[in-house]
Amino acid sequence: MRQMTSRARPVPTAILPSNDMRVFNFSAGPAMLPEEVLQQARDEMLDWRASGMSVMEMSHRGKEFTSIAATAEADLRELLAIAPNYKVLFLQGGATSQFAMVPMNLLRGRKVADYVHTGEWAKKAIAEARRFCSVNIAASAENCNFTYAPRQETWKLSADAAYVHYTGNETIGGVEFHWIPDTGAVPLVCDLSSSLLSGPLEVSKFGLIYAGAQKNIGPAGLTIVIVREDLIGHAPASTPSMFDYKIHADNGSMYNTPPTYAVYIAGLVFQWLKRGGGLAQMERINAAKAQLLYDLLDQSRFYHSPVDKRDRSRMNIPFTLKDANLDEEFLRQADQHGLVQLKGHRSVGGMRASVYNAMPVEGVRTLVQFMREFERRHG
Amino acid sequence: MRQMTSRARPVPTAILPSNDMRVFNFSAGPAMLPEEVLQQARDEMLDWRASGMSVMEMSHRGKEFTSIAATAEADLRELLAIAPNYKVLFLQGGATSQFAMVPMNLLRGRKVADYVHTGEWAKKAIAEARRFCSVNIAASAENCNFTYAPRQETWKLSADAAYVHYTGNETIGGVEFHWIPDTGAVPLVCDLSSSLLSGPLEVSKFGLIYAGAQKNIGPAGLTIVIVREDLIGHAPASTPSMFDYKIHADNGSMYNTPPTYAVYIAGLVFQWLKRGGGLAQMERINAAKAQLLYDLLDQSRFYHSPVDKRDRSRMNIPFTLKDANLDEEFLRQADQHGLVQLKGHRSVGGMRASVYNAMPVEGVRTLVQFMREFERRHG
Repeated sequence: MRQMTSRARPVPTAILPSNDMRVFNFSAGPAMLPEEVLQQARDEMLDWRASGMSVMEMSHRGKEFTSIAATAEADLRELLAIAPNYKVLFLQGGATSQFAMVPMNLLRGRKVADYVHTGEWAKKAIAEARRFCSVNIAASAENCNFTYAPRQETWKLSADAAYVHYTGNETIGGVEFHWIPDTGAVPLVCDLSSSLLSGPLEVSKFGLIYAGAQKNIGPAGLTIVIVREDLIGHAPASTPSMFDYKIHADNGSMYNTPPTYAVYIAGLVFQWLKRGGGLAQMERINAAKAQLLYDLLDQSRFYHSPVDKRDRSRMNIPFTLKDANLDEEFLRQADQHGLVQLKGHRSVGGMRASVYNAMPVEGVRTLVQFMREFERRHG
Repeated sequence: MRQMTSRARPVPTAILPSNDMRVFNFSAGPAMLPEEVLQQARDEMLDWRASGMSVMEMSHRGKEFTSIAATAEADLRELLAIAPNYKVLFLQGGATSQFAMVPMNLLRGRKVADYVHTGEWAKKAIAEARRFCSVNIAASAENCNFTYAPRQETWKLSADAAYVHYTGNETIGGVEFHWIPDTGAVPLVCDLSSSLLSGPLEVSKFGLIYAGAQKNIGPAGLTIVIVREDLIGHAPASTPSMFDYKIHADNGSMYNTPPTYAVYIAGLVFQWLKRGGGLAQMERINAAKAQLLYDLLDQSRFYHSPVDKRDRSRMNIPFTLKDANLDEEFLRQADQHGLVQLKGHRSVGGMRASVYNAMPVEGVRTLVQFMREFERRHG
């Protein structure tokens, strides 16, 4: 276990932080990025490939940045095997903007949309959609405090819904859909902010997928939208240009200046994923990482996972201590061991370990070892 | 004149690019950043002040990032001497989002807004506003191909306008307002994307100011809005949450995850401005830089500035060559001298030198020297 004595040091002036300085950061997002990606970004900061410029300084219409953006899109398409009839958009405004853009663009004259209510993020999507249409709650896990993903046989879909929306992975509750709903001809829309790129995905099952970048993709300020072409071009004339998918699609995500540096970092992450064997390999690693932690939670009487075993997230793992009075001490000691950002979301309390792609297996092993030791001393 | 032989080299593997590798980048935005800022960002990339994290990896709700954001706001308030009755918002979506947010939030039940038409960016603001209200063109410089800023005595303001909007500096046309209009009790709204922080500003004369960051402030993907408090809270219920100033103001610009890394870089730029003597000193330097180039344009019969002398921008300096057939050769040779991104916007042609705060005087001197030499050989 690496001791984080470096945390007490003054601001380092050295150019190259040693690996010992880095912590294992279990933040739900913005979150850890692959160290290789950060190293490359550091090395290219003042001069990208002998261009004499930082990527941050490049005109988005120049040959350097347009090649960066085109490569990023091509790599993302390759990783997810996205068919040509889907547009990939690099936007701003996070999932919160998508909560509005989805109804504004996809209602296509209809009055109703179906939403599955699975927790904090579904709730926000629903509240925003209600500004634009009538929302039918097709299913809700509220009866069990949002600790499971409602089976499709319980869903009550509307006859005339413009689309069906669900939250693929609830970042706060730690509930993940490990299956894709079948909504027939009605477009399926999914918020995959905290699980996109954690494994392979059958994109063709969806009408639209969106994800804020700040979990598995890159820095905050970039949002990925993958949308089937026939769903583009239906926004009413009163829609702000920035909220119209067609305008972004027609302009190759460069209707206005895109968040260029975030696109560049996401591109480095895509290349890191490809070097590592793609999403099938990433899924194996993520399953193994999550298993390490869930095994501990299941074996222990000191720690508890509130989520239904079938629907446990591989990305966000909430857990509680037997005695909530020990929470502060747990966090304090974890921090001393270089295990940071383990505090659960303020709306649910307890702990949460977010273990996105960039969290090394070593980080989870270190956490598990620390948790066993903490249980031994305080259990 | 530094020869950019480094441009032919392969991708450098060294950690520290020498200064010789850097070009003078006259891009209109994203644009040059202060080299000191990039150096600090590089040095802190893997470990911000012994936190063990990159700023890109930090939870926006953690103590590290909240201190970065609070310092950035305080420094910006200090630089511009912003009074407490103004909110400073760090948003996403660029000026293009503001083109919609301004009418959506500021109409307050009225039907008309006044706009001053000064060129490409005013045109975009006007087109977007027309989705939400009736636009009265209070003045237009179209009669002289947008080469001047219409005097206020020619403006025809509406009796019932919700606000008056103008573009403080036309990035493409190179026309700048060197005076602040007086609209009495009607809120004055200004797009200062390409001139905010180029000098001191009487913020109290405005109801609302907005600026995309990618010129004088920081990376693309961050937008600064400075808005008087009484203008907040008037958006209709159908407004998307992300387009409601009140929601952002009430949540300290953290209603959703902000573009954290862009906020950090902007904060470093603010500190660089303070170290350099603040905005009064920056204005002196900018005036001197612009003068160097305008003096050449005025003395030469080979180069020509299309803009009315009174209204010339200190930030974006468009010019033409006597013979447009020489344009390509001019750009080719400039590039060889490490003077890049001098091509004018596709809508107006010719050349454009954008000389924002981060462009060193040496860069403008090098450009002027190159231009004299080019004229000597081709004039």
